[in-house]
Amino acid sequence: MKHVKEYIEANKDRFLDELFGLIRIPSISSLSKHKEDMLKTAEYWKTKILEAGADKADVFSTEGNPVVYGEKIIDPSLPTVLVYAHYDVMPVDPLDLWETKPFEPVIKDGKIYARGADDDKGQGYMHAKAFELMVKTNTLPCNIKFMIEGEEEIGSPNLGKFCENNKEMLKSDIILVSDTSMIGMDIPSITTGLRGLSFMEVEVTGPDKDLHSGIFGGAVANPANILAKMIASLTDEDNKVTIPGFYDDVLIVSDEERLEMAKAPFVLDDYKKALDIDEVFGEKGYSTNERTGIRPSLDVNGIWGGYTGEGAKTVLPSKAYAKISMRLVPNQNNKKISELFEKYFKSITPPYVKVKVTALHGGQSYVSPTDIIAYKAADKAYTESYGKKPIPVRSGGSIPIISAFEKILGVKSILMGFGLESDAIHSPNENYPLHQFYKGIETLPYFYKYFAEMMKG
Amino acid sequence: MKHVKEYIEANKDRFLDELFGLIRIPSISSLSKHKEDMLKTAEYWKTKILEAGADKADVFSTEGNPVVYGEKIIDPSLPTVLVYAHYDVMPVDPLDLWETKPFEPVIKDGKIYARGADDDKGQGYMHAKAFELMVKTNTLPCNIKFMIEGEEEIGSPNLGKFCENNKEMLKSDIILVSDTSMIGMDIPSITTGLRGLSFMEVEVTGPDKDLHSGIFGGAVANPANILAKMIASLTDEDNKVTIPGFYDDVLIVSDEERLEMAKAPFVLDDYKKALDIDEVFGEKGYSTNERTGIRPSLDVNGIWGGYTGEGAKTVLPSKAYAKISMRLVPNQNNKKISELFEKYFKSITPPYVKVKVTALHGGQSYVSPTDIIAYKAADKAYTESYGKKPIPVRSGGSIPIISAFEKILGVKSILMGFGLESDAIHSPNENYPLHQFYKGIETLPYFYKYFAEMMKG
Repeated sequence: MKHVKEYIEANKDRFLDELFGLIRIPSISSLSKHKEDMLKTAEYWKTKILEAGADKADVFSTEGNPVVYGEKIIDPSLPTVLVYAHYDVMPVDPLDLWETKPFEPVIKDGKIYARGADDDKGQGYMHAKAFELMVKTNTLPCNIKFMIEGEEEIGSPNLGKFCENNKEMLKSDIILVSDTSMIGMDIPSITTGLRGLSFMEVEVTGPDKDLHSGIFGGAVANPANILAKMIASLTDEDNKVTIPGFYDDVLIVSDEERLEMAKAPFVLDDYKKALDIDEVFGEKGYSTNERTGIRPSLDVNGIWGGYTGEGAKTVLPSKAYAKISMRLVPNQNNKKISELFEKYFKSITPPYVKVKVTALHGGQSYVSPTDIIAYKAADKAYTESYGKKPIPVRSGGSIPIISAFEKILGVKSILMGFGLESDAIHSPNENYPLHQFYKGIETLPYFYKYFAEMMKG
Repeated sequence: MKHVKEYIEANKDRFLDELFGLIRIPSISSLSKHKEDMLKTAEYWKTKILEAGADKADVFSTEGNPVVYGEKIIDPSLPTVLVYAHYDVMPVDPLDLWETKPFEPVIKDGKIYARGADDDKGQGYMHAKAFELMVKTNTLPCNIKFMIEGEEEIGSPNLGKFCENNKEMLKSDIILVSDTSMIGMDIPSITTGLRGLSFMEVEVTGPDKDLHSGIFGGAVANPANILAKMIASLTDEDNKVTIPGFYDDVLIVSDEERLEMAKAPFVLDDYKKALDIDEVFGEKGYSTNERTGIRPSLDVNGIWGGYTGEGAKTVLPSKAYAKISMRLVPNQNNKKISELFEKYFKSITPPYVKVKVTALHGGQSYVSPTDIIAYKAADKAYTESYGKKPIPVRSGGSIPIISAFEKILGVKSILMGFGLESDAIHSPNENYPLHQFYKGIETLPYFYKYFAEMMKG
């Protein structure tokens, strides 16, 4: 497959230019003011899929942001790969922590710095270019379909319906996704599990207006103090979640499997150093990798209330808020967990305040088997391009729609991620090493080759 | 004293125009971008004191915002009243809760709506106009001095030094202040106690950057969750503050005094209704008025961290913050309490995070005796203008500089407040009834009359 490296070398500057064009559109799905940018980004993807060699491509409107679909059918009797990616990105605040402008990509120390550089514009666009490479070098061994959505970061609220309505069009043998990480730049890995998600927002109301904390302090419940107490009581001294029933459905991983997982390379001191923390934290009785891989968690993603500006303001706030999310593992049901959370949070509300609980979004966990053809093809592809056998890992992250794909389309997904933990996705200064971008474009054609071969029998 | 009502009636529109001019300057002392507005407000006061009839008035610069000083000495052998007020105001956020623009005063339902309408532009300016009234009607019975500062809302960090440096100039027999409230529009009261204040800011740092809450959630301590636990542990189930030593110096009020205080008119249902709360809250064993009048308290004035925008962002924040203040009672020392807070907060910090604790400002509590001439003169003044004897009350609020005045200048203060609890000071839609503004201007000349008479013996 000498043609692969040669094609990438000859076109690498253009590949990057095109990716930068994609990144420059600020497609933040959670902020309604970016509605038009979503459409622009979808159109950009459509054009690029067509230019890469698709038979057809279209922007499909939904009740939310549009979905881009494109395909190249070389022979209906051959296997079909459905590439899934998302063109939306996370918000960029706190903006003052960015060293460069989030939507103006720059290359520094061999990395692309920008919102979406990895998640999921950088990783997604590798697929467009691997596709182009196979078309232009006449090496595409099977049919290919693209489904690029614009609402992954807000829980894919409309993609399930899109799949329901287009089952025939989306028919495929495997769904291929690059939206996860590898263990390290020289340690390839395949993600075999994703956590589910239940994302809640709570609002605690005390008095109907902000009060003077001198005149009323001590006599009227302060919703910020109460919210702190309520959040504190969501976990116990062993860092276990206290919501009744929370762990009821958690799939218990066997000691054998835990021993096997413990073999993945992990240096605790490096982990702590990379985050500048003195101690790790988590549920008693589990290792760091187990805490994100096989156990659920509960995090405050945002908290606010009262005066947050410069200096002092002696106010007793009327309201305090928090965004609280739970990562879930097999067989926890995200809807059930959201309901348990709401019920429990309301049950611990003292009579001095009122609370409102809203489920913002969620999704099921996913386990990808290692005995399917797609896994074996991915294993061979990484081995070929990296010279090393990839390690199967459970990721702590969530791609809520993946489990929905299996349910609606009846097709498994293979998670070939090329991100690194240091890519700071969802954070200021998100970045993606150029090396990973090109290595991804190089690895994917191998996957198609082996997948098509093995599917033939 | 028919001339008092007549003069007010003849000039009431101009009085209001002048107050509106004062209010329109956005003199927020805690925000550094308003530096120039502070100077403008000081100049405005100076001009108005001179126009009202002062012999001289000047703007004195300090290391912070300037102090306005003015005086009219009619006879050095007569008693002297030093009027203290402040021209700075609180910040205005949350701005979206204001029904009108905070610095564009409007009259609605007989009330002035604006930031500073009561605290302390409305209440302070009554003194300028009562002074003018006495000068123009030739009824000023004693000497008068004005000291108007611009840093009360941030703890008067430079006024102590100003007093130290100008003891001779500021020499007086009583300090007269209108920066407190009455029980109700038809229930005059004199504030005989103020709580002290210790205002802290805390910063909790987990990892050195925001992290993806899926990839790291459950394995890295979340500073927002930790901060919630730390705040929760600052008070116990009886709503007592848990900081060791916090109550050590609290002056215990006798049962007799508590019985006397309980006679002040108070309707719990009205109180709850006015705040739209189902239940009051507070330290076990004390009534609502005792909780703010004779007991210290601890309140979160602001809390923030992580993603606080629209929708969901699955971030594990690097930092979380809170502004936490404690209201103090006689004989608690605010510096000692700030130190106890810092020591305790650090002691409960778990090893997974780092904390920073900063004391933002503070002040001592104050007790005003009811057996001094100024109290008796104030009592007679209210009785004259309201037709009712005023009730002595302990306020939950703080005017940190008042106790410093006694220490530095050796002079007591008399707190003749005309505000109402419904004035929403420090809150959106701050307001001040026109009735109170004019009633204040009417009552103050009586105070001067009786004070001068009683001082003569």
